[in-house]
Amino acid sequence: MSDSHDSVGIVTAQTAVFDTPLPLNSGAILQGYQLRFETYGELNAAKSNAILICHALSGHHHVAGRYQADDKAAGWWDNMVGPGKPIDTRRFFVVGVNNLGGCHGSTGPSSINPATGQPWGSAFPVVTVSDWVYSQSRLADRLGIERWAAVIGGSLGGMQALQWSIDYPERIAHALVIASAPKLSAQNIAFNDVARQAIITDPEFHGGDFYAHNALPRRGLRLARMLGHITYLSDDGMGAKFGRMLRSGDYRFGYDVEFEIESYLRYQGDKFSDAFDANTYLLMTKALDYFDPAKSFGGDLVAALKKASAQFLVASFTSDWRFSPERSRETVKALVAANRPVSYAEIESVHGHDAFLMTDEPYVQLMRAYLDRVAREVQA
Amino acid sequence: MSDSHDSVGIVTAQTAVFDTPLPLNSGAILQGYQLRFETYGELNAAKSNAILICHALSGHHHVAGRYQADDKAAGWWDNMVGPGKPIDTRRFFVVGVNNLGGCHGSTGPSSINPATGQPWGSAFPVVTVSDWVYSQSRLADRLGIERWAAVIGGSLGGMQALQWSIDYPERIAHALVIASAPKLSAQNIAFNDVARQAIITDPEFHGGDFYAHNALPRRGLRLARMLGHITYLSDDGMGAKFGRMLRSGDYRFGYDVEFEIESYLRYQGDKFSDAFDANTYLLMTKALDYFDPAKSFGGDLVAALKKASAQFLVASFTSDWRFSPERSRETVKALVAANRPVSYAEIESVHGHDAFLMTDEPYVQLMRAYLDRVAREVQA
Repeated sequence: MSDSHDSVGIVTAQTAVFDTPLPLNSGAILQGYQLRFETYGELNAAKSNAILICHALSGHHHVAGRYQADDKAAGWWDNMVGPGKPIDTRRFFVVGVNNLGGCHGSTGPSSINPATGQPWGSAFPVVTVSDWVYSQSRLADRLGIERWAAVIGGSLGGMQALQWSIDYPERIAHALVIASAPKLSAQNIAFNDVARQAIITDPEFHGGDFYAHNALPRRGLRLARMLGHITYLSDDGMGAKFGRMLRSGDYRFGYDVEFEIESYLRYQGDKFSDAFDANTYLLMTKALDYFDPAKSFGGDLVAALKKASAQFLVASFTSDWRFSPERSRETVKALVAANRPVSYAEIESVHGHDAFLMTDEPYVQLMRAYLDRVAREVQA
Repeated sequence: MSDSHDSVGIVTAQTAVFDTPLPLNSGAILQGYQLRFETYGELNAAKSNAILICHALSGHHHVAGRYQADDKAAGWWDNMVGPGKPIDTRRFFVVGVNNLGGCHGSTGPSSINPATGQPWGSAFPVVTVSDWVYSQSRLADRLGIERWAAVIGGSLGGMQALQWSIDYPERIAHALVIASAPKLSAQNIAFNDVARQAIITDPEFHGGDFYAHNALPRRGLRLARMLGHITYLSDDGMGAKFGRMLRSGDYRFGYDVEFEIESYLRYQGDKFSDAFDANTYLLMTKALDYFDPAKSFGGDLVAALKKASAQFLVASFTSDWRFSPERSRETVKALVAANRPVSYAEIESVHGHDAFLMTDEPYVQLMRAYLDRVAREVQA
């Protein structure tokens, strides 16, 4: 596949190795770690045009472009990042990073634990959104970026953008918090727990040390992903795309795949279970559950956000029921009460939670307009 | 526990054995079968005061009362059925039946297949809502009931009430269709498929023939039930009851049970996985997926309901997102278009789908008022 004029083109991932110990919220300390990342565009002389893209549950550092011309798929946000795209790589230096605990090149449960020479597995510490932000700040140091023009993320990525604004107020000019929430609801946690239990109770999980058993808890991970997908799509969107369509003409009165929606979910589950690390999945869902920036401020989100000095864009999607517009409005209300400048957009979309990855025109226009403003500030 | 004045008291289950072959929608024929059932109240001389209660996914024939004075729990709808209760056993002869394919005494996958002398297991045929109604009509024959004063059910039970009105218009005076839908959405089917896949991919399932292996697919059934429970409760109701409450004071940075909602779900899952048959769970969810009374009328629900001559009560609950009020309104609109008399109530409740089992006062009043009317017709 040849690269079009608005693609960042062929990209190469890089690795940053850190040998300074990283103390984590849990009390554990990682003696050393590495972060896998990619960059697109050029850092300007003032080092003022850098944007950090934070990924969601199953994302990674490969945000845009292709590794090889014939790669089937481009980076996960290639529709949003590139020359002339809303996150315009002619104007911005864009950084994508695989989070600590990930399974795409950054240190995580499937990495070798130097203390044992074996994969970390169950011994890998649980990390939090705040830990990620901390580790990302060290990457920023390494890249010579004192202050991000913007930190941007959808879903769990939006939580990182919000946490950046609280933990490093002086290092972030704009936080773009998309399809996210200030903390998970009981229902959100419940879905995560079913997913985790599917993985943990898979006999092939071996208490998290499946690597040593040459096993993979595929069944559990597959179920987790199938369930996840239901919460990423809207009821209406699923209805429009799949409805009650059958793969063959009529009911077959058995338990093989029958409805198109079953076929779609099982395919998604199968694909994911071959590619993703089960321990990383557990860890990412736990970071979601734990995220609650108000917690260390006595439950007062306004007090937490008073620490911030960034400007905010908060965006939600009408059909997103995983992190509904109501959840984004909680963030907006707290920002307003904390006297922080915030723009809020509730975008009409049938794409549910997944809309943050899609190209609904009002969303693209919003991002383009907001980032135009960020770019003008950078140049000013 | 002593029985209060409004309880049906000590009850005894009965078994009706049928040796007339039962042809099923799938094309399979059950040569013989039995139905487990209970009755409360007295059938009047005109045999005009009989009410059939149809159960939902995990329900059964034990609707009201206790088998022994010290039973911890009464029947599943004891709050609605009894002397002086909305379904008043001083006025009505109430019948509860365990559906064919069930695991509470009616013939099902865990019953002995006379052809092999072994449990049916995977050989038990898939049954539909229409098959259930057919088998229930034979039970009505056996009991001498030509026409039900009402057929009542919530969720999957409501689908049976609707199907009764279409399949046997002359045999049902009133259909009470509560927290139900005229067919499942793609999202509904998706949740069912994840539950089924959890069971089917459990290594202890053995293709449905786990009885022969002296095994139980507990892990799969547990996950299915945990997931089910999320869809039975509302986001708000779960938030009010559990929120983000932790079992111990603070985060523990591990994968053991931590949030109260996790504890609740796992307990529900554990309890269910010890008590319910996995093949019955599969079969019940499949009956849900297949339910679509419009299907044999070219997809025209109005045409299907034109066959009915019953009067209808359709009720939904505001916080029910499994079968939302919108789905009940589809039924109501089709009934109106089919020129059938229908009352519709959209009941304010935080209890989600489970509200049909609960005792929200407006719901109780509605049922009482409607069944008063049914009782007066019986006496007239």
